[in-house]
Amino acid sequence: MGKFDISTADFYASKQIYVDEFLEFLKIPSVSSEPSYRDEVLKCSRWVSNFLLNAGLDVEYWESPFGYPVVFASWLKAGADKPTVLIYNHYDVQPVDPLEKWTSAPFEPRVSGENIFARGAQDNKGQCYYVMAAVRFMLEKYGELPVNLKLVIEGEEETGSVAISKLLEVKAEKLKADHLFVVDVGFEKKDEPAITLGLRGNIALSLEATGSKTDLHSGMFGGIAYNPNRALVELLASAYDKRTGKIAIPGFYEDVVSPDQEFLSALDFSLDIKTLEREQGIRPGGGELGAAPLESNWLNPTLEICGIGGGYTGPGFKTVIPATSVAKVSCRLVPNQDPEKITELVANYFREKTPEGIKLIVTTRKGGPAVRTSVKSKVVQAAAKAFAEVNNKECKFILCGASIPVVADLAKVSGSEVVLIGYGLPDDLIHAPNENFSIDRLAKGFATIGRMLEILAD
Amino acid sequence: MGKFDISTADFYASKQIYVDEFLEFLKIPSVSSEPSYRDEVLKCSRWVSNFLLNAGLDVEYWESPFGYPVVFASWLKAGADKPTVLIYNHYDVQPVDPLEKWTSAPFEPRVSGENIFARGAQDNKGQCYYVMAAVRFMLEKYGELPVNLKLVIEGEEETGSVAISKLLEVKAEKLKADHLFVVDVGFEKKDEPAITLGLRGNIALSLEATGSKTDLHSGMFGGIAYNPNRALVELLASAYDKRTGKIAIPGFYEDVVSPDQEFLSALDFSLDIKTLEREQGIRPGGGELGAAPLESNWLNPTLEICGIGGGYTGPGFKTVIPATSVAKVSCRLVPNQDPEKITELVANYFREKTPEGIKLIVTTRKGGPAVRTSVKSKVVQAAAKAFAEVNNKECKFILCGASIPVVADLAKVSGSEVVLIGYGLPDDLIHAPNENFSIDRLAKGFATIGRMLEILAD
Repeated sequence: MGKFDISTADFYASKQIYVDEFLEFLKIPSVSSEPSYRDEVLKCSRWVSNFLLNAGLDVEYWESPFGYPVVFASWLKAGADKPTVLIYNHYDVQPVDPLEKWTSAPFEPRVSGENIFARGAQDNKGQCYYVMAAVRFMLEKYGELPVNLKLVIEGEEETGSVAISKLLEVKAEKLKADHLFVVDVGFEKKDEPAITLGLRGNIALSLEATGSKTDLHSGMFGGIAYNPNRALVELLASAYDKRTGKIAIPGFYEDVVSPDQEFLSALDFSLDIKTLEREQGIRPGGGELGAAPLESNWLNPTLEICGIGGGYTGPGFKTVIPATSVAKVSCRLVPNQDPEKITELVANYFREKTPEGIKLIVTTRKGGPAVRTSVKSKVVQAAAKAFAEVNNKECKFILCGASIPVVADLAKVSGSEVVLIGYGLPDDLIHAPNENFSIDRLAKGFATIGRMLEILAD
Repeated sequence: MGKFDISTADFYASKQIYVDEFLEFLKIPSVSSEPSYRDEVLKCSRWVSNFLLNAGLDVEYWESPFGYPVVFASWLKAGADKPTVLIYNHYDVQPVDPLEKWTSAPFEPRVSGENIFARGAQDNKGQCYYVMAAVRFMLEKYGELPVNLKLVIEGEEETGSVAISKLLEVKAEKLKADHLFVVDVGFEKKDEPAITLGLRGNIALSLEATGSKTDLHSGMFGGIAYNPNRALVELLASAYDKRTGKIAIPGFYEDVVSPDQEFLSALDFSLDIKTLEREQGIRPGGGELGAAPLESNWLNPTLEICGIGGGYTGPGFKTVIPATSVAKVSCRLVPNQDPEKITELVANYFREKTPEGIKLIVTTRKGGPAVRTSVKSKVVQAAAKAFAEVNNKECKFILCGASIPVVADLAKVSGSEVVLIGYGLPDDLIHAPNENFSIDRLAKGFATIGRMLEILAD
């Protein structure tokens, strides 16, 4: 090890201080998708910028008319012979709905042994926190960093990264880097470190079907009015090919290219079905016919109905034909599928199949493309080495079925090869009630970031 | 006219007193489907029984362990040579959801010119009120009634008439009558009186599909978990034959018999499509291929998705696979379709088609069969004459696509032929926000009830 030796022991030496500070971060309800939380999201952006300013970084606060500010922090005194590393995190979190399924309030973090329960505990405040804490630690202890460092921490990852996407071209020069780490993923299994070589892209559409001015009595108008609930279930069901499990929208797979054999053979497709059944209560069955679960999750695009709602679903029955029914649809994309093209394809498919008597309004959100990086790249190898050291175990290479829409654009603009890393685990319940992260992973993340920067400096 | 001449003028002579009293009735939120309203539903039953007791009827309060009390009131002093007439109403109302679409609070009745806006204004408190007011008026003015009268007013029509159904056999002797009027329907067009010769039956099922213990991230688990929203939309969409508009569940039409030509030729199938489009904003399209709108609504069974809900449908997007998704399904039945048989048929259809990885819980509710009466029956002819007199216009004969589950059982137990009458109109918005009824129809209903009883006494 070089000058900048940093280990989990450095975290545990001040454990309580770190945990208390992390809880402060979690208490700020930075839900970017709900306008009523606007002040809190802004408060969170200031919490992050103050942290980094106090740590000794130069901080810029990139506001834009489009959404929440991007916090950009840099320390560029390592010298021209040292590489420049860009690290991406986000300070916004998902909504908390359904609130009644949380065992403790989502923004009143609960510490239970090693675990910390709160919205954002993992995604992405936990992962953002250990990055910031590691950088501050090195600057405090050594007065410098092994590399030139840029941190970009946005506040709209959960809503499609609108502001940062619009800022990328303007800020391209500032973002230039050799290596890009996106610290927002994790391992498939505890203590089995893995580096993520790619993400799926995603798009999202909202469908609103209206059949009448007001809700109608299902007896008085049943057989006359076309029920918007029926219209939506027919539209949505028609998007699936029941026989193959594939998406039945014509043209959906047109641009999909298969990954090469070398790439595939580096990947670990193993998945513990028993754990999946015990922890999430699921049995795989949502993928394509004949595909292994992780093949479906990593290599194939999907279409999910993330929400549907129309009419009365409370206690008892209400014999009604609702005026309006809504659905929220999201697709995961694979390399070479263009988000805009697929968004239009899916929107037009639903528009064209809408039955007579129903008005369909389709609202679309900017999506992001899939990302893949070669296992041989320097950034991947440095990450793999750091994770292997801290976890004392060889690293696996995996993909991730989720999406971080801005990653592809950020890699392109910064001119760097990108790798996705992090200490997330499948049962962290991100995007769901009772999201949690663990203190030992804060410590390992802290050490891994430090080691990785030093390895890259060599 | 005979001794008991009663007209709308008798109502208008005390209009304000009647309206004020009616508003009191509307203010009691007797929502039978929601357990939290239990005390209010009971309060409403007492309001009704006190009204009739004060009017001079013998009142019985039929409680049961199954649900809300049935108010049974009788006046049997007309003599053995006079017929016995049974009149059915209900004092419970539908839920108010979606509350935000009401322009005034559903249980704070708003009078605007001729119109009174409130939940239950028409269905069925308005129609119940003029029956009770007419009976009281005759007893006050003449000290007697032209016929022996029995009123049966239940508190669970909107939730399947459980209590009264269970009481029918026990109370069969009390309910014996020559004629049964169910005062819970209306006309297709204002000032065009119509007598309803039949109702569709109905059944209701609740489907709850569960795929996982908690909500899942749609990226992390998409392609692995089967989305319960997808399971429900596929199940529900498969119940329709898109090509013909018929229900695609095998056996659904097995027992359906076509009505004879004489019956069909008495019916007025005309429907003003322009009014439908202007008032409800709908264009017919929900029925069977090639069937006129009222053929579909009166003569054909339907399957409606009265509610569906799963995942996130709030502002923005949440990329989630929900743990559970629910749907409320209701079918309208035609003569000779057995409610229990069809309930089992539909429930089993959904159970058997449920995909691997999804658990489906089907909850069923007791339904009711369809009802039809001959146009030549004495009860139909008396009603037609009374409506024609009060409205100064010949009566049409129609059917009703809605259901009053208890009607068939009540007709059977009482030994009477049944007719459905009332002053409802299609734009009363029953079961929907801004339900309303009009003062002139209270007056006409009042007069019609009086005239009808006298005509039957001849």
